[in-house]
Amino acid sequence: MFKNNTVKKLVVATLGAGLVTIPAAAAAPDTAFIFNTLLFLIGGFLVMWMAAGFAMLEAGLVRSKNVADICVKNIALYAVASIMWLLMGYNLMYADVTGYFGTFFSMWSPDDAAVLADGATIDPAGYAAGSDFFFQMVFVATTASIVSGTVAERVKLLPFLLFTIVLAGVIYPIQGSWEWGGGWLNAESYAAAFGAEFSYFAGSTLVHSTGGWAALTGAIILGPRLGRYVGGKVKPMPGSSMPLATLGTFILWVGWFGFNGASQLALGTISDAVSVSNIFVNTNMAAAGGAVAALLATKLVYGKVDLSMVLNGALAGLVSITAEPLTPLPLTATLIGAVGGVLVVFAVPFFDKLKIDDVVGAISVHLVCGIWGTLAVPITNGDTSFLAQLVGVVAIGAFVVVSSSIVWLALKHTVGIRLSGDEEERGSDLAELGMEAYPEFGKGSQKF
Amino acid sequence: MFKNNTVKKLVVATLGAGLVTIPAAAAAPDTAFIFNTLLFLIGGFLVMWMAAGFAMLEAGLVRSKNVADICVKNIALYAVASIMWLLMGYNLMYADVTGYFGTFFSMWSPDDAAVLADGATIDPAGYAAGSDFFFQMVFVATTASIVSGTVAERVKLLPFLLFTIVLAGVIYPIQGSWEWGGGWLNAESYAAAFGAEFSYFAGSTLVHSTGGWAALTGAIILGPRLGRYVGGKVKPMPGSSMPLATLGTFILWVGWFGFNGASQLALGTISDAVSVSNIFVNTNMAAAGGAVAALLATKLVYGKVDLSMVLNGALAGLVSITAEPLTPLPLTATLIGAVGGVLVVFAVPFFDKLKIDDVVGAISVHLVCGIWGTLAVPITNGDTSFLAQLVGVVAIGAFVVVSSSIVWLALKHTVGIRLSGDEEERGSDLAELGMEAYPEFGKGSQKF
Amino acid sequence: MFKNNTVKKLVVATLGAGLVTIPAAAAAPDTAFIFNTLLFLIGGFLVMWMAAGFAMLEAGLVRSKNVADICVKNIALYAVASIMWLLMGYNLMYADVTGYFGTFFSMWSPDDAAVLADGATIDPAGYAAGSDFFFQMVFVATTASIVSGTVAERVKLLPFLLFTIVLAGVIYPIQGSWEWGGGWLNAESYAAAFGAEFSYFAGSTLVHSTGGWAALTGAIILGPRLGRYVGGKVKPMPGSSMPLATLGTFILWVGWFGFNGASQLALGTISDAVSVSNIFVNTNMAAAGGAVAALLATKLVYGKVDLSMVLNGALAGLVSITAEPLTPLPLTATLIGAVGGVLVVFAVPFFDKLKIDDVVGAISVHLVCGIWGTLAVPITNGDTSFLAQLVGVVAIGAFVVVSSSIVWLALKHTVGIRLSGDEEERGSDLAELGMEAYPEFGKGSQKF
Repeated sequence: MFKNNTVKKLVVATLGAGLVTIPAAAAAPDTAFIFNTLLFLIGGFLVMWMAAGFAMLEAGLVRSKNVADICVKNIALYAVASIMWLLMGYNLMYADVTGYFGTFFSMWSPDDAAVLADGATIDPAGYAAGSDFFFQMVFVATTASIVSGTVAERVKLLPFLLFTIVLAGVIYPIQGSWEWGGGWLNAESYAAAFGAEFSYFAGSTLVHSTGGWAALTGAIILGPRLGRYVGGKVKPMPGSSMPLATLGTFILWVGWFGFNGASQLALGTISDAVSVSNIFVNTNMAAAGGAVAALLATKLVYGKVDLSMVLNGALAGLVSITAEPLTPLPLTATLIGAVGGVLVVFAVPFFDKLKIDDVVGAISVHLVCGIWGTLAVPITNGDTSFLAQLVGVVAIGAFVVVSSSIVWLALKHTVGIRLSGDEEERGSDLAELGMEAYPEFGKGSQKF
Repeated sequence: MFKNNTVKKLVVATLGAGLVTIPAAAAAPDTAFIFNTLLFLIGGFLVMWMAAGFAMLEAGLVRSKNVADICVKNIALYAVASIMWLLMGYNLMYADVTGYFGTFFSMWSPDDAAVLADGATIDPAGYAAGSDFFFQMVFVATTASIVSGTVAERVKLLPFLLFTIVLAGVIYPIQGSWEWGGGWLNAESYAAAFGAEFSYFAGSTLVHSTGGWAALTGAIILGPRLGRYVGGKVKPMPGSSMPLATLGTFILWVGWFGFNGASQLALGTISDAVSVSNIFVNTNMAAAGGAVAALLATKLVYGKVDLSMVLNGALAGLVSITAEPLTPLPLTATLIGAVGGVLVVFAVPFFDKLKIDDVVGAISVHLVCGIWGTLAVPITNGDTSFLAQLVGVVAIGAFVVVSSSIVWLALKHTVGIRLSGDEEERGSDLAELGMEAYPEFGKGSQKF
Repeated sequence: MFKNNTVKKLVVATLGAGLVTIPAAAAAPDTAFIFNTLLFLIGGFLVMWMAAGFAMLEAGLVRSKNVADICVKNIALYAVASIMWLLMGYNLMYADVTGYFGTFFSMWSPDDAAVLADGATIDPAGYAAGSDFFFQMVFVATTASIVSGTVAERVKLLPFLLFTIVLAGVIYPIQGSWEWGGGWLNAESYAAAFGAEFSYFAGSTLVHSTGGWAALTGAIILGPRLGRYVGGKVKPMPGSSMPLATLGTFILWVGWFGFNGASQLALGTISDAVSVSNIFVNTNMAAAGGAVAALLATKLVYGKVDLSMVLNGALAGLVSITAEPLTPLPLTATLIGAVGGVLVVFAVPFFDKLKIDDVVGAISVHLVCGIWGTLAVPITNGDTSFLAQLVGVVAIGAFVVVSSSIVWLALKHTVGIRLSGDEEERGSDLAELGMEAYPEFGKGSQKF
């Protein structure tokens, strides 16, 4: 675990003793290629693991009569997003980029590997196409996961999955292509107009704000849960299992090291290794700052510490740093996260005042802090401009709000998106699945 | 997170500017050795993590009176399998291979490391023996984990662990040696007779079918739970915690990236890195296909989506692709998984019709889809033959059925394998452990 | 998954066919640097994940009325420890080591990366400073996590966090500096006096005993829970969710591969890769030995297997091997872990006899087995001496007991550290947070 620095100085490598040449098949560009690929694979499984985090967070924060249904939604949305990314999203997002579109179905073939292994063509910034595809895919799923928590307890299962299909297959890749598909946010004309290109390192806007806007439109179009806002008061509807919500938060926290760390996109040079390391530290510090800030804020404002706010504070810190986890000093990262943690403490009651019913607080966490983090990039990154960030946020926001609204409204007026009042009362588990999440506990225990 | 491909083209490496030679101590075969080892270590901890997945899946799917007991079984079987693999299994499986047997107790010594570090002897396909041992060990534990879910709620703890001892120490390594110990399934004579060698990349047959056959014989010899099949009807015995079952499924899903990905056995070349990446994608797509297929199938067949079927569908997809996660295109992998997901929806009631009581559906998931996946290999892998696959499946199945039956029956007629009716009624937690998993909830809450 | 050794021999690399020189930018010291950094990052996220393990273990082992509070404590202590490590701990621990102190706030700058990338200055034993900082940070959090379980159900939240601040910011780094900050435990004079330097590879004493001593003083100063020891008897207060406790144990087990494995501190040579692999195997075997030993011991002593003892047995095995996971043969590691597993079975009732109330058994696991493991190092590591180990254990123990006592007592006589009797009766969730962890189950269900 620990290094002894005194000792370490004595570990003088015996380099130089026997210089030899090494064969081309194992030359250093190969090594860089493998490191880059490995970074995507490790980052990818960590972000995939975040799907479990959202599932547990949401399962813990909904009432017990809706737990099985939210579990179905979370595993199904991940599966659906994966399939839609394969069928459409990946090619749509990179449609303008020669070399991806068209090679899609052959990029997995052993022949490609053989070509890549030809010493003459190895790009030291290269990586296996499959590892990149995998890493991109899990980000789409994250976007969809954000929505499910907000609209829980009243949205119907199949329309929710239909929305996920459009979100993962169309909405997400179109706005993503504006930046990474060689689109206008990344163009020289944009930089000329607004002082810099739009910059959001690991997806504060693309993933978190997009998920947040889609969740917001869903919450407004669906309307609040029955009995949530009565007589000008907010009726508390406490989550059924706080340890599961806590587990979900820890899962998201650990997964975020992959989310931000692997967004460096390369590990094949010392410079990249240093950057990935600093991103790990800053990601952790922002989450810590967010959690502590939310703890103190709830203690000061409400007199008591609020666990769900502490959990959301940690997530708020993570979202806040995601737009720029590399350039801040760790203390700055802590403060950026702490601002996120405070924002969430005030954003949650704010949306309740607007009667926008967000079951898990995802709009406050992902949208509000996604915007905060994106606008805060220029504080530490001199290559960006506030105006460029603002225009990017607004443009993507407008697109997602409009497109999401169209989809939600189309679903509403065709298949319907909301459970009946009676179904909602009995719970989505019985209504949608005909089962209970905890058949022997709580109300379920009556039967046994 | 995202690459900008336009920009990426401009990242021209400045290679060639300053050519130098590098010292032998860090020559490329070392690098390959380290990558290969690292792949086993990462894959190993991911597969070890699957033990937690089985524990949570099974804890969620049994009734609350049997939850603590299934937790004991899961952690104990992992520990027992580890120890048996160390004491017997590893050497038994590779007994025919010179170089492993005999060096077992010295392979950990620093001296070996020194030998390996001698530049002249480094094999670029090499890896640390310990990392291989670790990776193999966690596979044995997976096999044992499959059994525990099927025979839950009625098998006694100690006989179950005795069965695990024989499974991990004898049955698993003997059939494993047929393929990987230089045995007959891998011999030229086999290929000559059946058109190809037996091929199951990451253990669809070895791990999943073996576990499944052992579970099947156990379920038959134990008999169904009391009151499960009465008057020609199947009495539903719903699991106590669907979020834990969901968590378990997500854990298994993420662990499977290690299971299949690290079964490539090497990461030291670009070709290997490409293969591992494609395996990750195919593994994910098959699970997604299985989950969505099971969701749609239950909706169509039963009118309602069934959460436990969706979970088992994802697992079915994972098992199905495990025999060949490398050669399929991702869309093909999705379909192979989807077939698995549908199979499981029909296999579960089929076994119930036969009054074979499988508490968590493990036979349907691991045996049925293990066979399906193994037989499906020739669809995408031209180096295999259907006949060779079928003969291998049958041979291993026959061996495991016979050997497992002998062990289960021997245990039945000596120490006994089944709880008394009264014990089963009160639950295995009180019977075996004298405690409750949830002492304050459900029936336990009476006392508080 | 499986190698075929016969086949493997045929995989003769075509090395030597085309020798070329490779450019300096990708020379092997870079590769070693990246491997070392990657080891810290992977190890770091695995150890961070242990925070979730402690949270789940403790949430499962406390009664339901204290679950939300223990969740707050666990996530907050991790956040607080991170921040204190950043603000003070890291520099305090390494204050004597030139090169760290003073460079703290600049070590993250891109300029440093540039310097590191200068071929002439790359140390093949080097790593990114941020990755080291991250890895060290998660160890501090582990130390704090040990305390929370022991003092659960009666300590107040804010004083507990104040204690964590001092533990992470002052106590831990001061004693740590004795060994790794170039202090007296690592000095030649120490080795001259006691026969060897003090040796505890991955923190058996530093982390586990320190956490254990801090927990012990806390438990004594706080006193036992109300009604725990009445009339000479120990009243059982069973944990609320055994599957969560099991999950926590599995999380800790998997995280421990990072804890011990990455404590090798390097992965850039074949020798390091072999060592890390052996550490993985030994870590796993010790846990397996501990779990099985505790299972057998409880069966023999109490007539029934005890799940919480099996869980603590696995953890005891892990703690026991942590002082020296490299030198033992795997069978020896199994036995070292097994002794730990037996120790814990007797230590838990022993502390109860002393009326030291340790809610989760953390003193038995971390302190008793931390000492056992540290003293057992000379059994397998010839470079150590029993006396040197004993003196180190006593010195650190004395320091932590005295310093922790001062802090606990200072807090007791200022802000107070214990809930009122009424608050404790109602549960810390309602008292501290005004909420319930499971509002619809158990007692909470009355309201719904």
